[in-house]
This record gives sequence, structure tokens and C-alpha cells, in this order.
Amino acid sequence: MIETPATAPSLEDPDMAHDPLRPLPLPSVRRLPLYLRYLKEVEAEGRESVSCTHIAEHLNLGSIQVRKDLALTDIVGRPKIGFETRALIEAIETFLGWNNTQEAFLVGVGSLGHALLGYGGFDEFGLSIVAAFDVAADKVGTKVHSKEVLPMEMFADLVQRMHINIGVLTVPAAAAQSVADLMVKSGMRAIWNFTPVKLTAPDTIVVEDVRMAASFAVLAKRLSDLLKRH
Amino acid sequence: MIETPATAPSLEDPDMAHDPLRPLPLPSVRRLPLYLRYLKEVEAEGRESVSCTHIAEHLNLGSIQVRKDLALTDIVGRPKIGFETRALIEAIETFLGWNNTQEAFLVGVGSLGHALLGYGGFDEFGLSIVAAFDVAADKVGTKVHSKEVLPMEMFADLVQRMHINIGVLTVPAAAAQSVADLMVKSGMRAIWNFTPVKLTAPDTIVVEDVRMAASFAVLAKRLSDLLKRH
Repeated sequence: MIETPATAPSLEDPDMAHDPLRPLPLPSVRRLPLYLRYLKEVEAEGRESVSCTHIAEHLNLGSIQVRKDLALTDIVGRPKIGFETRALIEAIETFLGWNNTQEAFLVGVGSLGHALLGYGGFDEFGLSIVAAFDVAADKVGTKVHSKEVLPMEMFADLVQRMHINIGVLTVPAAAAQSVADLMVKSGMRAIWNFTPVKLTAPDTIVVEDVRMAASFAVLAKRLSDLLKRH
Repeated sequence: MIETPATAPSLEDPDMAHDPLRPLPLPSVRRLPLYLRYLKEVEAEGRESVSCTHIAEHLNLGSIQVRKDLALTDIVGRPKIGFETRALIEAIETFLGWNNTQEAFLVGVGSLGHALLGYGGFDEFGLSIVAAFDVAADKVGTKVHSKEVLPMEMFADLVQRMHINIGVLTVPAAAAQSVADLMVKSGMRAIWNFTPVKLTAPDTIVVEDVRMAASFAVLAKRLSDLLKRH
């Protein structure tokens, strides 16, 4: 269940806090998990404060970039000291909505779906996949990493009853759009799309593509250019 | 390290193929797998030619964008007819280097590594994971989706003997940098990084991050903003 964070970003200084009505600076948002991971290491080492410069050096980023990225969360550092580690962690988690666990349903228990059900890394960003769905009779009723696989017939009803906002889409490409349509129709608000298909969805639905093929396309092309040069 | 530019660099001459010495227009490269998948459907339907407008409509993209993206591959369409479907498929595959199967080693047979070993979708882009490696004694010697899990001690020697260019990195975050260093030292040229760690590697090595956490950060933030508005 998702709850609205207690404090909305301040709108007094539009250059600092993020206004929800303005487009998100996506590259900055994408970097926030990197900061979060590092800050948790810093905290585990018992260091109570940390500077932008230090974060930038450790993560191999520019310090102005780091400062801008962190300003999104509306946190204010202190000269010469930097940020309090714990406060900065909480500010990023609040900004991303990761401090409240977000429940999701996964649809499509193929090899990728199977893996995501067992992937421990989601805890770190407060995502909990609470149930999985599949059309295959031989999968329905089995348990995968202690999560029961339910039949698609139960999907829409459970989405509504449990107020599940997020659908994790790991079906074969041919089924991607029709399952996405079902997610939207059932009342989900966000689709995390692991298929290679470009989904069509209403503007009121958040669709975020993981696009492994797109990532591999970049790798393959850069490798191919590199091997031509050397 | 790859950073997605906010906007695609404009191509001064849309008919000009990509010069390997100029920066890659990454958003365009990332879209090529989408075209490829759709063109294969078109071909399967027996349609021998296809227009930019048609592709654009089907994929919900602008037709000028599609034209620019496809111009990267140096293919020339014919007025009123468009592209020959087969020739366009081959042009994209050649551009991406996907027409030659690329062999890779995967390191880290946890839940994600396990899934990637069994993921059928890689065939489509000519990636073949030929062996897997792990440090855990209870995993070494087992088979995962018919691929043997080998001990890390054999890694460097096999990379060199088999001329494997690509390493798929699915180890826990704490081991990511040291395994990446080993990949580089063993002579690999590209690392497909599924860990959340920002790796440090020489400029002569291609590092492409899948960054599931970054993708989820965007989803969570957009969802959180959406729920505040409605």
C-alpha cells in the first residue's frame, strides 16, 4: 500500500525542490539509488556526515552533478560539514517513495519472472512482489520462492481488493499488450515492463521499461566499433 | 560509462551512416531492437516492403524520428515504397553486430544469474552465454539450464583461450568491482553490468549498465507524483 509522504517537496524555490508538475530530471532520478547504496555503506561505517565532494569522488561523478541531484530531495547541507548521513538517506527514500514498501503483482512466471520472484535486491528499494500470476495450468498452484502462482482469472479482483498499484510485466512479447491492458483495466497505476514491447497505455498510467534488449544493443554496437578501431 | 543524453544528438545529414569515431546517438541505438522485432513480424506476415510512416504508427513514434534512427544503418528507402523488409532487418542487424553470434561468460549464479542463463530472449539478439562461473563450491559442477557452472579459477584462462569478449556480471554488489577488474585483466572488452554498482573500468572497455534500481526509481517517483495529483 502506497502512502503519500508526510512532507511534499517545497515549491518556494523551484530550482531546488522538484515540482511534481514539472518534468522529472530522469538522469538525476536514476542516479539516486547509487547515492542511497553508498550512503548506507557510509552509515554502516559509522560516519555521521558526508560531503558532496566525497560522494562524487567515490562514485566517479562530478561534484556539481551530485549537488544538483541531491538538491532534488530538498535537503540542505551545512558548509564544511556536508550532509548528515541518516538525514540524507531518509530524504532520498522519501523523495523516491521507497520508505513505504510498495506491493506489486507479477504476471508471467517464465524464466525471467521466476528470477525476479527470487531476487533479493528489491527489498532495498521497498518493492515487495506479493503474488504471481500465469496462464499455464501447470504453473498455477505451485510456489515459486515461497510465492504462490495464481490463475489469471483471479487477477483483476485481487488487484482491486488489495489495492495493488504496480504490475511487474514478464510475459512473452506476444502477450505483453493484452496483459498491460488488463493491468490498466484492473486499476493498476504503474507497469514495470520487462518485455521488449513498447506498450500503449493511457497517460494516467506510469509505464517504465527495463529494456534489456536496448541495453544490449548499446553494448553490442559500442563493442563492434571498439573492435573495428583496435 | 554510459550516460543517456537528455536528447538525441541531431544528425547533420540523415542519409549519412554512423561514423564510429563520433559519439553514438544512444536513444536511437536503443530503439533499434524495437524496429527489429516489429520488422520480423512484418516479414512473417509476408509483407516485402514497409514505410517509415507505417513503422512509426505501429510503434507510436514520430516518423521523422524513425527515419533518423534507420538512417544510422546507412540503408536507403525508395519513395512511395519504403524499405524492403528483409534488407532493413539485415541492415539493422549488421549495424548492431547482431548477425554474428556473440559469446559471453556469465559470472555470479545467484537468482538473477540463474534466470539469465535460462532466458530464451537473448537468441534474438545473437547473444549466447556459453558458460557460467561462481565462487560457491556447492554451485560449481552443477548445470543450470544445460550450462555448466565452472570455478572462478578457470575464468581468466578460458576467456583467453576462447576469445570471449563479453562478461555478464550478476554477482552481489560487494563483489562487482573485483570481478569486473578480473574481466578486464582477463582480456574481456565489454561488461554487461546487472549489478547496481557504478563500475570503474579503463576507457577501452565497454561498460553497459542494466540498472534495474534506476529504472524502478523512475517508476516509483512518477507513481508517487501521480498519486499526489489524483
